[in-house]
Amino acid sequence: MSAAPEGLTVTEQGTVLRDGAFGNARALCCRECGHEVALGPHYACPECFGPLEVSYDFPTVTREEIAAGPRNIWRYKALLPVPTDIEQSPNTEPGFTRLLEARNLAAELGIDKLWVKDDSTNPTNSFKDRVVACALSAARELHAKVFACPSTGNLANAVAAAGARAGIKTVVFIPSNLEKPKQVNSAVYTDSLVAVEGNYDDVNKLASEIAGEEEGWAFVNVNVRPFYAEGSKTLGYEIAEQLGWRLPDQVVIPVASGSQLTKVHKAFQELVKLGLVDDKPVRIFGAQATGCSPVSTAYKADTDAIRPVKPDTIAKSLAIGNPADGIYVLDICRETGGAVEDVTDDEVREGILLLARTEGVFTETAGGTTVGVLKKLVETGQLDTTLETVVINTGMGLKTLDAVADEVGPAATIKPSYGAFVSTGLV
Amino acid sequence: MSAAPEGLTVTEQGTVLRDGAFGNARALCCRECGHEVALGPHYACPECFGPLEVSYDFPTVTREEIAAGPRNIWRYKALLPVPTDIEQSPNTEPGFTRLLEARNLAAELGIDKLWVKDDSTNPTNSFKDRVVACALSAARELHAKVFACPSTGNLANAVAAAGARAGIKTVVFIPSNLEKPKQVNSAVYTDSLVAVEGNYDDVNKLASEIAGEEEGWAFVNVNVRPFYAEGSKTLGYEIAEQLGWRLPDQVVIPVASGSQLTKVHKAFQELVKLGLVDDKPVRIFGAQATGCSPVSTAYKADTDAIRPVKPDTIAKSLAIGNPADGIYVLDICRETGGAVEDVTDDEVREGILLLARTEGVFTETAGGTTVGVLKKLVETGQLDTTLETVVINTGMGLKTLDAVADEVGPAATIKPSYGAFVSTGLV
Repeated sequence: MSAAPEGLTVTEQGTVLRDGAFGNARALCCRECGHEVALGPHYACPECFGPLEVSYDFPTVTREEIAAGPRNIWRYKALLPVPTDIEQSPNTEPGFTRLLEARNLAAELGIDKLWVKDDSTNPTNSFKDRVVACALSAARELHAKVFACPSTGNLANAVAAAGARAGIKTVVFIPSNLEKPKQVNSAVYTDSLVAVEGNYDDVNKLASEIAGEEEGWAFVNVNVRPFYAEGSKTLGYEIAEQLGWRLPDQVVIPVASGSQLTKVHKAFQELVKLGLVDDKPVRIFGAQATGCSPVSTAYKADTDAIRPVKPDTIAKSLAIGNPADGIYVLDICRETGGAVEDVTDDEVREGILLLARTEGVFTETAGGTTVGVLKKLVETGQLDTTLETVVINTGMGLKTLDAVADEVGPAATIKPSYGAFVSTGLV
Repeated sequence: MSAAPEGLTVTEQGTVLRDGAFGNARALCCRECGHEVALGPHYACPECFGPLEVSYDFPTVTREEIAAGPRNIWRYKALLPVPTDIEQSPNTEPGFTRLLEARNLAAELGIDKLWVKDDSTNPTNSFKDRVVACALSAARELHAKVFACPSTGNLANAVAAAGARAGIKTVVFIPSNLEKPKQVNSAVYTDSLVAVEGNYDDVNKLASEIAGEEEGWAFVNVNVRPFYAEGSKTLGYEIAEQLGWRLPDQVVIPVASGSQLTKVHKAFQELVKLGLVDDKPVRIFGAQATGCSPVSTAYKADTDAIRPVKPDTIAKSLAIGNPADGIYVLDICRETGGAVEDVTDDEVREGILLLARTEGVFTETAGGTTVGVLKKLVETGQLDTTLETVVINTGMGLKTLDAVADEVGPAATIKPSYGAFVSTGLV
């Protein structure tokens, strides 16, 4: 650190940071070797190339302080790498979504007490608004001039929308063969949607290259990933607070990179450490689609070796063939007495309709996967149906409408007369 | 009323009601002649055929009581025709959506202080979840066996979802030529989607006929309409509470039947009467699409005679050619010093993109209409840009994606290389 005017710090890389730019965060800490790096746009350990994670010096935080906060993720700002005045900076104000008691689905599956944490009602209709809001804060504090990501869907929407609202230039990279509706759903927010001739891996590689070459580009899931990933903790905080400040017994969470699952687990541990909830065992379950199930496959083979796969599933938002946090997912699910399970595309579709018909929640394929896995966990006896369970719905059905378009439709088509209606037998 | 066991009342029609079935509601009162009817499935005055509206005997209600309530519309249950235990009955838990300070849009339009009340993040992504939740409560208290509606879109989604979650049979009537995605978005929730060969007017007429013929059918926008319509008041309550318990100076509201605008106005008046906010002038503006602008046309012609039109606009959720509450909209907008204005379909599209690009909110055509009208009100000097203004966004862009699909897209399509990207000039 160099000398700087009061209230400011200059990092070794020459970035001018205001005091408290990252709230109570203390450093970036390697998840593998524990090496610490100063807070900044870094994501890989310089010692061992392990993933960097934000660590904190938490002050005392009370339930009352949190309850007095805004009705979005910033009520937990003391537990996130964001400044104390974060609410003053325009952002999409995500979070504090519904925790629905799912009595009909519980009855259908034979579970005593079941909740759906419904993130489909976030600003751009997926949990990605949470992580992007944290990445946006980091980008702002690091004076990034461009807010960017490679994505095929939810992340692109969230980045383009958050950037528009924040008044920061966004550049969003997508595979050029992406369906038109998905392109539109990002292009409405940004002038700089870039279609790349290649698959998602090609797009991702290009993003990393640009992040390395260009100064001042914040790629949410590349160079500010440690800050970004912390946003998923808020799912865990909210579940605990909405249950009346206590932890559930079991949670079922979709697994793409695996980051969300590890962060919900981290959130629960932090709440216990801070004395905000009582300690208790929480069994954590991961959900994958069979067409992209490297973590589930390793779990079932009782190995730590996660073999990358080429995804082939309708659950595209979970289709990460080489999940960065897969190994940590295995650790957590094994340690807590949970499991990792997968379901076929037909079971994904069935999961979507099951949730819609029982609870009036229309989820995307990722949620269909999670509900499908919940069902399978019950059927295979892996989930204890007498324990209180939460299932996370991460996104919204209109985004993957085609998945169920051929499954449902009108029960009858009639002439506009009462007699015609009576003859349908629907009276 | 007949004799009945303690805690129950039997109405003249033989309906058994539990005490407090409709909360603090006292009667249904004719908006035209003031005649009162007992609370029940009635919508037209038996004396003059005027529309019936719920009237109340409000107790003292404090800000603290409201603030201690759930984070959805039921925090205002004392002001709605619902029982005090309404949260116990499964429903979609709509409301308490974001009130976003829209600094970018304000700057773009030259307004000093502007807010967007964003109802696109409701459970089925439109404000209809609010009204349907109130209709569902009435249907339950009246022991309806079927929960139904005629609709082409948002209302169908909301009814089918709410019915699924409540475990009550739903029957949803749509025109048979409705686009497949809109059919799917309701059919996921219900087995009983009925396609009717005809236009929306034909579907509507059929619904009224069934409501008249069949016992125990609650058509949300027909025979339980007075209860249904009260749900829109919660938009007004939330705006006031989220502003810190005060009224804005100006509000811009879309006009289809006109019900929402009249109910927001009613909500503000109730809050003043209850002493929850200070009294002050609030100018109320109505927004229509030019292709279906009977109220705006009458406003501009300075007449009370609203001439029905055949709708021809992309703003389909506002396309009611003969708006039931149009005359009340005229009264309110004139009395409060507001106005009713309309914009072309091109201006609707422009409004959608303007809101997305400035605030990261992707609205449907109804919201594009409202934002377009806001812009026009500024340009024509009808809106005072020095006064604090709220614009209501009632729905979500994915539902009317086609409206802007040809307007936006990738800025460039490139090979997956850094060089190719640099050559786009987007760096």
